Amino acid sequence: MSNLQLSHTNTPTWLYRGISEIFPNQPDSQDANDNLAQRLALTKRPLRVKLGIDPTGADIHLGHSIPVRKLRAFQDAGHTAVLIIGDFTARIGDPTGKSEVRRQLSIAEVKQNAETYLDQVRPILDFDTPGRLEIRYNSEWLAGLDLTKILDLLATMTVGQMLAKEGFAERFQQENPIYIHEFLYPLMQGYDSVAIQADVELGGTDQKFNIAVGRDLQRHFGQTPQFGLLVPIIIGTDGVQKMSKSLGNYVGLGENALSMYSKLEKIPDALLEEYFELLTNLPLGDLPKEPRDRQKLLALNIVTQYHGETAAKEAQNAAADIVKTGFTAQADAVPEFPLANVEFPAKLFYILKVSGLCKSSGEGQRLIKDGGVKLEGDRVSDVDLTFDSPAPLDGKVLQVGRKKFIRLIS
Amino acid sequence: MSNLQLSHTNTPTWLYRGISEIFPNQPDSQDANDNLAQRLALTKRPLRVKLGIDPTGADIHLGHSIPVRKLRAFQDAGHTAVLIIGDFTARIGDPTGKSEVRRQLSIAEVKQNAETYLDQVRPILDFDTPGRLEIRYNSEWLAGLDLTKILDLLATMTVGQMLAKEGFAERFQQENPIYIHEFLYPLMQGYDSVAIQADVELGGTDQKFNIAVGRDLQRHFGQTPQFGLLVPIIIGTDGVQKMSKSLGNYVGLGENALSMYSKLEKIPDALLEEYFELLTNLPLGDLPKEPRDRQKLLALNIVTQYHGETAAKEAQNAAADIVKTGFTAQADAVPEFPLANVEFPAKLFYILKVSGLCKSSGEGQRLIKDGGVKLEGDRVSDVDLTFDSPAPLDGKVLQVGRKKFIRLIS
Repeated sequence: MSNLQLSHTNTPTWLYRGISEIFPNQPDSQDANDNLAQRLALTKRPLRVKLGIDPTGADIHLGHSIPVRKLRAFQDAGHTAVLIIGDFTARIGDPTGKSEVRRQLSIAEVKQNAETYLDQVRPILDFDTPGRLEIRYNSEWLAGLDLTKILDLLATMTVGQMLAKEGFAERFQQENPIYIHEFLYPLMQGYDSVAIQADVELGGTDQKFNIAVGRDLQRHFGQTPQFGLLVPIIIGTDGVQKMSKSLGNYVGLGENALSMYSKLEKIPDALLEEYFELLTNLPLGDLPKEPRDRQKLLALNIVTQYHGETAAKEAQNAAADIVKTGFTAQADAVPEFPLANVEFPAKLFYILKVSGLCKSSGEGQRLIKDGGVKLEGDRVSDVDLTFDSPAPLDGKVLQVGRKKFIRLIS
Repeated sequence: MSNLQLSHTNTPTWLYRGISEIFPNQPDSQDANDNLAQRLALTKRPLRVKLGIDPTGADIHLGHSIPVRKLRAFQDAGHTAVLIIGDFTARIGDPTGKSEVRRQLSIAEVKQNAETYLDQVRPILDFDTPGRLEIRYNSEWLAGLDLTKILDLLATMTVGQMLAKEGFAERFQQENPIYIHEFLYPLMQGYDSVAIQADVELGGTDQKFNIAVGRDLQRHFGQTPQFGLLVPIIIGTDGVQKMSKSLGNYVGLGENALSMYSKLEKIPDALLEEYFELLTNLPLGDLPKEPRDRQKLLALNIVTQYHGETAAKEAQNAAADIVKTGFTAQADAVPEFPLANVEFPAKLFYILKVSGLCKSSGEGQRLIKDGGVKLEGDRVSDVDLTFDSPAPLDGKVLQVGRKKFIRLIS
């Protein structure tokens, strides 16, 4: 291939940056089957690097971006990223209906989620260079599996091996029911590796078992087993728990520049190094000494990745403005306004009046028209903006001019 | 249907004869869903009565005949026997290759075994009355199952339920590997009941779990669950262990009349009642007092079922002859001849000479030509009959005329 730029060196620093584990891993081995660096050095074709995507949810955050960024590093070294959209599993859902995680989705929902996902990772991955990206839907090979092939898949593992898997072990111990079809999910994910002939599979540390199943199945089907490359599960902006949408300690890839910047410039000092390592390409030896400078550099760099340099700089300035004018980094300093005082559905100009940010609905409408109203950092231009319920406003800062803020609380 | 003769009585004695268990079983219930007698009394159509056949082996014995005889009783009461040939499972075998029980068979082998099976049960079942017999191959519905449907099947049971099954429980306890595909076999057998919409499934007592799985799956697919009707596992001719080909304590349905008779007229007294109940339709209250008379009646009745009355009477006479002339019922009385003295391959006339039953190979050939030689009760007519190894002769009685016997021993 004309655009193949394989990185032929035995110490690819991009490979080792910010990873938790490679397996198998014999760093001194000359054998390309147990030393990934050696495999990279010796391969005469682009490797196929798999990342599985669960299209049951749409919004993704910086934690999800970590394996995607590693995938980009492989692309930049000349290899092929293979994104697997797990549409088959998502469309099946959980036949018992007992799992919220495996809610059954319609084809349209899966398609929509997959597209939203791809939009969000577009700034990270190389979508344009020919041969660098393959997007595959696993229904392509799973929907057609018949009972003979499935028996063959199931026969590759014992009940004991499966019950040793994290998650199953505890449930079995505690006599919580494990439905037999649940044993099939790791095997389906493993079969994805067979179907696309993966050389490497990326995933969080919680994916080790599934990736190992992929290795076993590839061996069973006469393929060279893939390498597993595991990346850490990142701690959220609270500095305590792993980043998660439900805990609210996340930075979404779809957030606007100011919102993203504001969260990132407050990352606790103890997390900064890990964030730099996992979420930027900056050389870790050259970081500023001052914690505040490091926070700002981190925020600027990450926002630049998703929104470009200009927007990132603007967000930095806007955030500084807010700080200068009293909307400090500490959320506590912003007065709260309970949305219980508002009757929904409600126009925004009405909320401006009820909350005391302006004197009348008329003034509220004028302020919006003149561009003087911001909601969570975004300028509002629609005078008729209406909310059916308090939910989308909860926790957001409503701002008039430079000096008046309230935080809406439901 | 013109030939429907449903037995509308609340106490069908044919139903209860010689069974181990019916489930569900509420004999006083008026509900046709938990009282099989009530179901039989109320049904307005022939019930569909399932018996699964494993076509991995060809020869079957009286133990196997017990559920088939019960199936015949249902046919005689106007119902439809549905024989399921498990060709799908037999053709798959065991993907791990670890199970001798589940050796993978070719389509031709399965077909051959199924035909041999049907030939052997032909004397028991009603093959002729229209609507009384359906023969189905389960590949018809199993081969086409896709992953979506299989996930649905697997989701009907938990790992804990499956591990409670006899066989699995001990292996799991002892940490002997259970391969995951083994969990599918009970579900496949259960799905057979769904596919043919069984009202009743017959089986040995070891089939209770699998038949119960069939009930669960039928319920899952919106059908009325089948009744399970379990028959005993019969003790073999040794009076000690369950009848089994490998233990040699069996009476094969394919055996000739004399061989069958000779074995049955020696059934230990303690087993006679059970044999009469399970293997004949004779009224149990009218049996002869004398044990020897009972043995002869049992043997005559059963041989008649498979070979007709004339052949059975002949066999009885031949056996009596043998007894009169010294070939007593006690095997020990027949002198043994070790086949180690014979060089294989060997012609039968040569064995006659070497063993001392005649003076020369020429005399042996003449004796065969004149019809004076019997092997295990069957007259030999092929002068050139040759054996490649001692195996097919082991334990058989070789007889010249009426008075000379030896038992060949390898």
